[in-house]
Amino acid sequence: MISKNQLKLIHALEQKKQRKKHGLFLVQGEKNVGELFDSSFSIKQLFATSHYINKNSRVLAEQGLVAITVEATEEELKKAGTLVSNNSVLAVAECQTMPVPQIQSNELILVLDQVGDPGNLGTIIRVADWYGIKHIICSPDCADFYNPKVIAASMGSFARIQVSHTDLSEYLSKQSAPVYGAFLEGENIHKAPLSKSGYIVMGSESHGISLEVAKFITDKITIPNFGQAESLNVAMATGIILDNFKR
Amino acid sequence: MISKNQLKLIHALEQKKQRKKHGLFLVQGEKNVGELFDSSFSIKQLFATSHYINKNSRVLAEQGLVAITVEATEEELKKAGTLVSNNSVLAVAECQTMPVPQIQSNELILVLDQVGDPGNLGTIIRVADWYGIKHIICSPDCADFYNPKVIAASMGSFARIQVSHTDLSEYLSKQSAPVYGAFLEGENIHKAPLSKSGYIVMGSESHGISLEVAKFITDKITIPNFGQAESLNVAMATGIILDNFKR
Repeated sequence: MISKNQLKLIHALEQKKQRKKHGLFLVQGEKNVGELFDSSFSIKQLFATSHYINKNSRVLAEQGLVAITVEATEEELKKAGTLVSNNSVLAVAECQTMPVPQIQSNELILVLDQVGDPGNLGTIIRVADWYGIKHIICSPDCADFYNPKVIAASMGSFARIQVSHTDLSEYLSKQSAPVYGAFLEGENIHKAPLSKSGYIVMGSESHGISLEVAKFITDKITIPNFGQAESLNVAMATGIILDNFKR
Repeated sequence: MISKNQLKLIHALEQKKQRKKHGLFLVQGEKNVGELFDSSFSIKQLFATSHYINKNSRVLAEQGLVAITVEATEEELKKAGTLVSNNSVLAVAECQTMPVPQIQSNELILVLDQVGDPGNLGTIIRVADWYGIKHIICSPDCADFYNPKVIAASMGSFARIQVSHTDLSEYLSKQSAPVYGAFLEGENIHKAPLSKSGYIVMGSESHGISLEVAKFITDKITIPNFGQAESLNVAMATGIILDNFKR
């Protein structure tokens, strides 16, 4: 059974301030919790149905999680969590401070400027993982990586991608690799020469790349428009651009 | 002011059964309602703030909408609608039965098999519009085109794309153009020859393309995976595939 205090903590972790205070975040659902087992994140507490515990008894033992696993009903888990389905397990894990990366040779790093929607950030993490991206650098006003909606939308990829938050201008001012930026009036990505290494900057859907960050863009690129839609969702645009870089 | 009966109708239209019964659907927010003005859809009633009405007085007059426009507060519109923001206007419009299309030369038609999530369908409509697609054919168990979440996620593109629902096996059995299908084990789209005309079939995220529909696929294609994510969201995959067909 989930105690009152445990429930209070879980609900508190829906808020960024509380996640920061406790240094903890929530991971929900079988798929995402499973990815947590294989990651460098440390699990502080696990709440799971008896069905889940029986099914996963071996891995729970291997991971040394038996002592910190609390059995709960699906009803309790549903009340505790933020998901509408997949309520068999919920983990409280320790946040990690991700260092800002040094670019490697042949590495593409994704840079997100003011991508505030957690669903978009989670979807970007998922598609970045599909295309083998290892690092995402976010401006401080992007959605919080540890937001439960980011974790959920990443479909497990949160455990494989290093996401750091930093001042983008300061970071980009020190880099020498090309900095690609997605603009509506850039060069057609179907024709532009795309390097195997560098930074790909995506701006927010409503405001695009901020003026401050735009100063550091060396190559403006765009996805050609064949119809009448005015714009693409930022996660969609990121996926299409990554596909073009990886061909 | 929105009357009790009007409010009851608006809320009823959140349900597919009621939309079918009344032959009406909801369009919310300035952007989507604006697209409605330029479309073949006929508006039955408009609920809008005095600010919206003043700002759009000319277009409302031109469209012959003055007599059917009801002034309402933003608070009323928020209560009536399903959106959390953009509550300056809400339209009740007449549904159209879209005929199943005949493929034209150099036309790509999108075919959706069991894409049940309305947000995904709306996002697919938006990206299809970006790539100049004119027709989407849905299996009967896809999300309803007139679902408010579909309309909202399409960001206005709902007004430009013909979306029909039909039995896919029956439809595809009569076609002679190539039928591409997205599978995890198809030919790499970066290398596969992609025709300028034909059908592109996308399956549901959880089940893929159904066995029944798979029989009609002439060309299995896949988006190459460079990392560790197990799958892509169906809307994302659709956008990436369309980009490859259009290059």
